Amino acid sequence: MARPTPLSGFPEWLPDGRVVEQHVLEALRRTFELHGFAGIETRAVEPLDQLLRKGETSKEVYVLRRLQAEEGEDASEKQLGLHFDLTVPFARYVLENAGRLAFPFKRYQIQKVWRGERPQEGRFREFVQADIDVVGAGELPYHYEVELPLVMAEALGSLRAIGVPEVRILVNNRKVAEGFYRGLGLDDVEGVLRQVDKLDKIGPDAVAELLVAEQGATPEQAKACLELAAISGTDASVVEQVRALAASYDAVTDLLETGLGELRALVEAAARRAPGVVVADLKIARGLDYYTGSVYETVLVGHEQLGSICSGGRYDTLASDGKNTYPGVGLSIGVSRLVSRLLSAGLVTATRGVPTAVLVAVTDEETREASDAVAAALRARGVPADVAPTAAKFGKQIKYADRRGIPFVWFPGEQDQVKDIRSGDQVDADATTWEPPAADLWPRVVPAGE
Amino acid sequence: MARPTPLSGFPEWLPDGRVVEQHVLEALRRTFELHGFAGIETRAVEPLDQLLRKGETSKEVYVLRRLQAEEGEDASEKQLGLHFDLTVPFARYVLENAGRLAFPFKRYQIQKVWRGERPQEGRFREFVQADIDVVGAGELPYHYEVELPLVMAEALGSLRAIGVPEVRILVNNRKVAEGFYRGLGLDDVEGVLRQVDKLDKIGPDAVAELLVAEQGATPEQAKACLELAAISGTDASVVEQVRALAASYDAVTDLLETGLGELRALVEAAARRAPGVVVADLKIARGLDYYTGSVYETVLVGHEQLGSICSGGRYDTLASDGKNTYPGVGLSIGVSRLVSRLLSAGLVTATRGVPTAVLVAVTDEETREASDAVAAALRARGVPADVAPTAAKFGKQIKYADRRGIPFVWFPGEQDQVKDIRSGDQVDADATTWEPPAADLWPRVVPAGE
Repeated sequence: MARPTPLSGFPEWLPDGRVVEQHVLEALRRTFELHGFAGIETRAVEPLDQLLRKGETSKEVYVLRRLQAEEGEDASEKQLGLHFDLTVPFARYVLENAGRLAFPFKRYQIQKVWRGERPQEGRFREFVQADIDVVGAGELPYHYEVELPLVMAEALGSLRAIGVPEVRILVNNRKVAEGFYRGLGLDDVEGVLRQVDKLDKIGPDAVAELLVAEQGATPEQAKACLELAAISGTDASVVEQVRALAASYDAVTDLLETGLGELRALVEAAARRAPGVVVADLKIARGLDYYTGSVYETVLVGHEQLGSICSGGRYDTLASDGKNTYPGVGLSIGVSRLVSRLLSAGLVTATRGVPTAVLVAVTDEETREASDAVAAALRARGVPADVAPTAAKFGKQIKYADRRGIPFVWFPGEQDQVKDIRSGDQVDADATTWEPPAADLWPRVVPAGE
Repeated sequence: MARPTPLSGFPEWLPDGRVVEQHVLEALRRTFELHGFAGIETRAVEPLDQLLRKGETSKEVYVLRRLQAEEGEDASEKQLGLHFDLTVPFARYVLENAGRLAFPFKRYQIQKVWRGERPQEGRFREFVQADIDVVGAGELPYHYEVELPLVMAEALGSLRAIGVPEVRILVNNRKVAEGFYRGLGLDDVEGVLRQVDKLDKIGPDAVAELLVAEQGATPEQAKACLELAAISGTDASVVEQVRALAASYDAVTDLLETGLGELRALVEAAARRAPGVVVADLKIARGLDYYTGSVYETVLVGHEQLGSICSGGRYDTLASDGKNTYPGVGLSIGVSRLVSRLLSAGLVTATRGVPTAVLVAVTDEETREASDAVAAALRARGVPADVAPTAAKFGKQIKYADRRGIPFVWFPGEQDQVKDIRSGDQVDADATTWEPPAADLWPRVVPAGE
C-alpha cells in the first residue's frame, strides 16, 4: 500500500491538534450545560426527501447507497443522505419525540456534518458543528432571542484563555428588513435579502446594480436598501437611525416597528449583560428563508476575513406535525473552521500530544512488573502514566518521553526516583504519594508562545 | 410534515439516555488516557478501494455519491464510502502520518461507524465504537498483548459503579490453533477456524459435520478440533491440557509451542494483575484473517447471550508502506450495543435528563433580569442553572422543574430562598455562596432502582 495522501475537504488533526479540538469542544459543552442545555446526538443520516425540503442546500447532499443492495431491494427502502447541518435532524427529532420531551426544550448538539461541495473549492466537506437551540411547542417567548447569542458569546469567551480572539456578534432582525423593504414597495423580500447578502463579497455598487437589474428596484429603492445596510451600532441609537431613514422614504410599517422594538430589546439587554459583544448591524441578511426574527453572525475581532464562525436566528416554524408548530431560536458554531484557523495561524498550542504525565522506566524485562506496579499506583490516584516499551538504556527511555512531551520519567529501584526531564531535577519519590505539579498533570491548551 | 418514525438500525437516545451514553464514553476515555493513549479522530469516509481490501466486510459498505455531481466529474474523484470500523481508517492514518507520529503509538478512538446491513436483520447500521490500539514501526513487544485486554478490563470495570455487570475476557492465541491444526494435518487453517467459530451457534455435532464435509477433515481430526475448543481455564494448567491433547494426536509443532508460551504469559500476568477477569478459552476463533497472535472476546457475566461486547487481537501487519510494516494489537468496544442493552434492560438510569441543578423562578417579566442575575451568579461558580421560561404562577414554575428532574427552585426576592422540591424544604440562600449537595450538582448515572 503506497503512502496515502489527505482527502481534500476532510480535515484531520495530529494528536496534539486533537487535544486542542477536544479542549474547545469541552469548553463549549461546559458553557452549554451550565445554561441548562441538554445534550443530544442524532443519527448521521436522514431520509433524502427531508434533506431536500429546503432548496438552498440540496446541491450539497451526499447520498448513501448500500454497496451490495440487491436488485429491487432498495426500492422499498427510504433513500438516505448524510445530514448537512444539525437543524434538519433536530427538527425531525423534536417531531419524532414530541410526546416525550418537555417544552421549551433546550438542547445542544455537537456532531459532524457533511456537504458534498465541489472538490476544487477547498472548502470543508466534513466538519464539526456545535449547535444550541431552544424550541417551544406552539409558542416561544422573545427573551430567548436575547439569551441565546449571549450564551454563545460566553461559550466563545471561555476560549479567550487559550488565545482565541475576542468575538463580536452582529445582529439584525428579519422583521426590520422585511418591514423596511415592503414599506419601500419591494415585495420580493427574499430576493432583496439575497442581493444584500453579497455586500461583503461584491461591494455596494454591484449590489445596487443587481437590485435594479434582478429585483426590479428603482435606483432610489436600491439606494435606500444600501443606506439601511450601512447602519450599525452597539446601542439603541441604531433604532432611531433606522426609523429616521424609513421615515425619510415614507417606508415606516407596523412590521418595521415590531422588528425595531425587538432589536432594541436585544441590543439593550446585551449591552447590560455583555458590554461590547453585540453589535446591531443592519446588513446582516442570512441567506436562509426560514428565519423570521433575530438573525446572528459572529466574527473573530481581527480575523473578520474568516467570515462568520457562529450564525443563526429565530424561526417561527422549525417543524410542524399538524397538531403543533415548533418555533425556535438557535445558533451554530463551525468548530472545525475555528480549530483549523487556530492551528494553522499558530494561535494556540497543546503542551503535549499524549495524556501521559509520567513515563515509568523499565530496568530490565525481568522487572517490568515492578514498573507496571508503579504505573498502576500512579493511575489509581489519577496520574496518567505509561511504561517504557523496552528495557533500553535509560538515555533512550528518556528520549522516548522527550519525543512525546512527557515531562517526568520514573526510575523504580530500592528507592524510586522521579526526574523532571525539562529541568533535569531528580528526586526520591513514592508512587503512592507523589504528584506532579497541577499544570503538568494533563495536557493543557495555551496561547502559542507561552 | 407527518410525525416521523425511527429508522431501523439507527439508534438514538432521549436526553436521559444520552446522559448514560456520555457517562460511559467519558469513563472509557478516562481509563484510556490514564494509560497514556492519545485520542485521535479520523474522517468518516475512506476511498472505496481501501474499504474493500478485506473481503469479509465489503458487503456492508455504504457508498457515497454527491447528489449534484456533474456528469463525468466524479470519474476523476475517488469513490468514497463510510468506514465500517475504526481499524481501516487508523491503518491509513498511521501510514499517512508515519513521519509525524512517535512509535510505538498508543491511540484511542471513539467514533461512529456504519454498516449497510440488510434492513430486516434488526442490527445496528450506525453505532459507536471505542477502540484502543498500540502500533509499532517494524516491531512491537509481546507485553502489549498482555496489557491491552487488561486496559479494557479496567475501562469496563470502571462502569461497575453504574450497574454494568462484571466482564470476562476470553483469550486464545492464533498460533496455538494454527499450530495444532497443522500438526493434525489440516492446512486450511482459516477454513477450520471459520467452522469452529460457529460452535456457539450450531453446536459441536454440526461443526464436526462441517469440518468433515467442507474442510475435508477425517472424523478423528474433527474430534480433535472439538476437543481443543472445549478446553478453557484461568491458569497455566490450560497450557498443559493443550500440550497433552496435541501429544495424544502426535500434533505438537513449533508454532504450537510458541503460541502456548505466549498464552501462558498472558494468563499468568492477567491472573496476577486482574484475578478472575481473563479466561483462556480455546474455542475463541475470531473470523478475521489478519490476527496473528492473541485474540480476545469479552462477555458480560450473566448476559453471555449478548455476544462479545469487546473484541480484538494481535496483527503482524496493520499496514505497510514498503518501507515499514506496522504490527499492532488492539481491542474495540461496541458502545452502542452496550448502552442499548443497559437502557433496554433497565440496568442503569440517569438522575435527570437535563444538566440543570437549579431553576430560577421569575416573579414577573419586569424582574426577569434579577432572575437572570441569580442564574449568572450560580453558573459563575459552576452550578448549572436555568431561568423559568415565563412568569407563570410559582406552582407552574415548580412543575416545570419537576418534569425535568431539576431538584432545586430558586425564588429571588428581598431575601432569596431556594426550595428542594423533592423534600419541600425551603431555606434562605445567597447566590454568591449557596451550593447544592455534590450529588445534585450534575446528573449522575446510577444502577436502576437506586
